[in-house]
Amino acid sequence: MGMWGERMIEIIGFDADDTLWHNEILYSQAKDQFQVLLAPYGDPERVRQRLDEIEEWNVRHYGYGIKSFALSMVEAAIEISHGQIEAPRLSRILDIVKEMLNAEVKPLEPVEPTLAVLAQQFPLMLITKGDFFEQHRKIERSGLAKYFRYIEIVVDKTPDTYRGVLAKYHLEPHRFLMVGNSLRSDILPVLEIGGQAVYIPYASTWAHEKVDETTRTAIKYIEIEHLGQLPELIENL
Amino acid sequence: MGMWGERMIEIIGFDADDTLWHNEILYSQAKDQFQVLLAPYGDPERVRQRLDEIEEWNVRHYGYGIKSFALSMVEAAIEISHGQIEAPRLSRILDIVKEMLNAEVKPLEPVEPTLAVLAQQFPLMLITKGDFFEQHRKIERSGLAKYFRYIEIVVDKTPDTYRGVLAKYHLEPHRFLMVGNSLRSDILPVLEIGGQAVYIPYASTWAHEKVDETTRTAIKYIEIEHLGQLPELIENL
Repeated sequence: MGMWGERMIEIIGFDADDTLWHNEILYSQAKDQFQVLLAPYGDPERVRQRLDEIEEWNVRHYGYGIKSFALSMVEAAIEISHGQIEAPRLSRILDIVKEMLNAEVKPLEPVEPTLAVLAQQFPLMLITKGDFFEQHRKIERSGLAKYFRYIEIVVDKTPDTYRGVLAKYHLEPHRFLMVGNSLRSDILPVLEIGGQAVYIPYASTWAHEKVDETTRTAIKYIEIEHLGQLPELIENL
Repeated sequence: MGMWGERMIEIIGFDADDTLWHNEILYSQAKDQFQVLLAPYGDPERVRQRLDEIEEWNVRHYGYGIKSFALSMVEAAIEISHGQIEAPRLSRILDIVKEMLNAEVKPLEPVEPTLAVLAQQFPLMLITKGDFFEQHRKIERSGLAKYFRYIEIVVDKTPDTYRGVLAKYHLEPHRFLMVGNSLRSDILPVLEIGGQAVYIPYASTWAHEKVDETTRTAIKYIEIEHLGQLPELIENL
């Protein structure tokens, strides 16, 4: 067991998408392709903005994940083209979706050796939000499942979500350390329930995940550049 | 605690879709609407058959659920119309999908009073397969969540799935009774791991769920007509 401040950490939780492996880039590449496909119908910047808006609106109907994103692309294509979109372009959208679903799940650079070290010192828990089927498949494909004693796929990451998960494992919040790339989903809600959090920003952060600067300066968390710095951070505290 | 044969039942598990509430009918109504939409492009029977085939094939890419079905409808519409499908018809497909996602979740007739009785005698567990976000929302909307001590949303219902769930609750298989409308998902895998099962056929059964007659006659389970008969069945055994 490691020490964290003067308090013992019992379990380390990890976000998955863009903390353990690349994910956002799949969406941003798909959006690039979508812009090209829709170029005959609209200014690329406007196309992207409208897709983002439709995607964000549709989360309430569809939830998160690639299939939801797919339906938003179809809807956006019809709207942006004023119903003129040709079927081959729509087929191409469906192909993009299948390519996303079948994409390789590449762990970020220092992830695997770091998890191998930490898994010998702590029980590790993977906590990921999103489509169950898709997340499940990514975990399997990543080759990282073996480092996690517990895996939780949740609908959303609110303080109540974390409360529920910790209660399930009879864990006091201050003995829980969460590591992730999203202030909104991995850091803020964990701090709110009295847990500890390490923030590892990902190069580009998904629009939905942004937190305004006021909130950001009002909270306390530790920030590192990559996961490889985590073992030393834990040892030195 | 109730008796079942000479063995004590500790937990009763219930399937959800078409066991507790109508579900299949949403898909079959959507397919009716799809046939009408595609009528200019193909014989209705052929349209339905091709949609069923594409849907079944796509389960491996998309998993189960309404969003997966939606993407299959879009793909089928493009294919069946040889790329001639007009955008307003595609928009109508997206509307059908949102109507399905927002449809009322109606418990089947004798379900609620029966669960109310059984929940006083046994811990009840809901075990449902499908899209996590969609199933989660249906459970909330059904008003039935309060009768279940445990809720498990699983990717698929194989013998290993049930083994995993029972292990999690430290439950011996022969002390577990599963109730559901699908021989393939609710009855066979539970019998295979040594559990007990009550089959309540739903009027129309989803094509993917069919089990051939040979398998069907080789296995032993109890069949009742509706959930209202379950408490008496349990008492009399």
